[in-house]
Amino acid sequence: MDSLVKYGLVMIKYAPANDGICQKVCDRVGYERFTCYGADFRVEKLFDSSSLAFTTNELGLHVDLPYYDYRPGVQLLHCIRQCEVEGGDNQFVDAKRVVDRLKAEDPESFEILTKVKLDFRLIGKDFIDTHLQQARPMIELTDDGEFKGLAYNDQTRSPYINVPVGQVKEVYRALKKFHQAMYRQDNFINYKLKEGEVVAFDNNRVMHGRSAYTVTFKDGKDKSRLLEGAFLDWDEIYSRMRLLDESMNGTPRL
Amino acid sequence: MDSLVKYGLVMIKYAPANDGICQKVCDRVGYERFTCYGADFRVEKLFDSSSLAFTTNELGLHVDLPYYDYRPGVQLLHCIRQCEVEGGDNQFVDAKRVVDRLKAEDPESFEILTKVKLDFRLIGKDFIDTHLQQARPMIELTDDGEFKGLAYNDQTRSPYINVPVGQVKEVYRALKKFHQAMYRQDNFINYKLKEGEVVAFDNNRVMHGRSAYTVTFKDGKDKSRLLEGAFLDWDEIYSRMRLLDESMNGTPRL
Repeated sequence: MDSLVKYGLVMIKYAPANDGICQKVCDRVGYERFTCYGADFRVEKLFDSSSLAFTTNELGLHVDLPYYDYRPGVQLLHCIRQCEVEGGDNQFVDAKRVVDRLKAEDPESFEILTKVKLDFRLIGKDFIDTHLQQARPMIELTDDGEFKGLAYNDQTRSPYINVPVGQVKEVYRALKKFHQAMYRQDNFINYKLKEGEVVAFDNNRVMHGRSAYTVTFKDGKDKSRLLEGAFLDWDEIYSRMRLLDESMNGTPRL
Repeated sequence: MDSLVKYGLVMIKYAPANDGICQKVCDRVGYERFTCYGADFRVEKLFDSSSLAFTTNELGLHVDLPYYDYRPGVQLLHCIRQCEVEGGDNQFVDAKRVVDRLKAEDPESFEILTKVKLDFRLIGKDFIDTHLQQARPMIELTDDGEFKGLAYNDQTRSPYINVPVGQVKEVYRALKKFHQAMYRQDNFINYKLKEGEVVAFDNNRVMHGRSAYTVTFKDGKDKSRLLEGAFLDWDEIYSRMRLLDESMNGTPRL
């Protein structure tokens, strides 16, 4: 948990490659955060999904659930079955670093993305029928102007931008600048999860994506990639850290 | 749901007086918001609780869970068993109105309570072992200076106020001013829930409290007051309202 706070991304290796591991990890900390995808969700190919995540397509870098007023703090992904063919790699990028660079290199675009509210929405039924929407600036800052979180998700951004028409071009220009900074290789992790590995990352700070893959069968059995995911909130993580700090280090209570 | 948005408080009458009603109501909308108290929670007398709520004592007006970064949006309380003796009345006050008055009558106190961060915390184990804490201004405003939410909960406010010593007196003075405005009778609802009634209210806008009561037995049976509670987030309520607006009124999607 300390490393997750510090670096925004950690990995657990050698977990069993079966269902329910994310829940077990979450239960050690607190409890899973329920969303419109249920408690645990399975990332696999579906043919009638309302989300690109549950297909075999490439997934551009993004954070999850920006159409919620309060985005879950941490996402877990557990690899139950990895495809033997090429593709299906997980990709991670520290958005804090991308934002810091954009601010230094193109303050105008940075400014626009902290001010202009973009609309995000999800309509469909993967777990329950849902029509969620939320307008928010893409780059969220604290009262002191520090990086607080990112809400970049082009897969669920609404098809229009709700600004006066004269401003549309500069918003798209700022989005393009961010997009270019985002894919620079020196801040880009490409890693194909192995079966039994669990990755946990800050859903407000670390963008994630995936390369495309194909559905495969072997001896009549489905050998396609299968991940299980879950969310966990920072409140529960900090609560557990305080309890452990008290019991292990004798740190006094508030 | 429309009335809940508009007035902040609604009542459902004639529900059965048994367990699981809050969950049924939540499931019609979306799903229950899980907290450190679990999904549903029972409000009854316990003798080793870490919360004053689960005793028979008087409960001063408050909002729930200010020690969370994100407080659940709506609280439901369902009366399963009401005490036959005096007491156990529910009390509700619209905090928006209290805040508007404070702003008009004592702008200085209003200003202090929108700026100074108070600490709230919960340590204990009612459902899972917990040490939650959060610092926040008591009166939360939107970017446009409008009332957004209240975080008044003296039962879970930490025993110190984290400001320079010279400021302590004026913070207590502001708190006292708010407290005086809060109990004015023309904004005060006192209502003893009847068995089978469910009250749902905005947990960021409507303060709730309770008068003290006593534990009673009759013919060897526990006849004490028993409420069941649950939380539901605004995201899910608005989602359901959009879906209904589409299916009932033909309102086009975003």
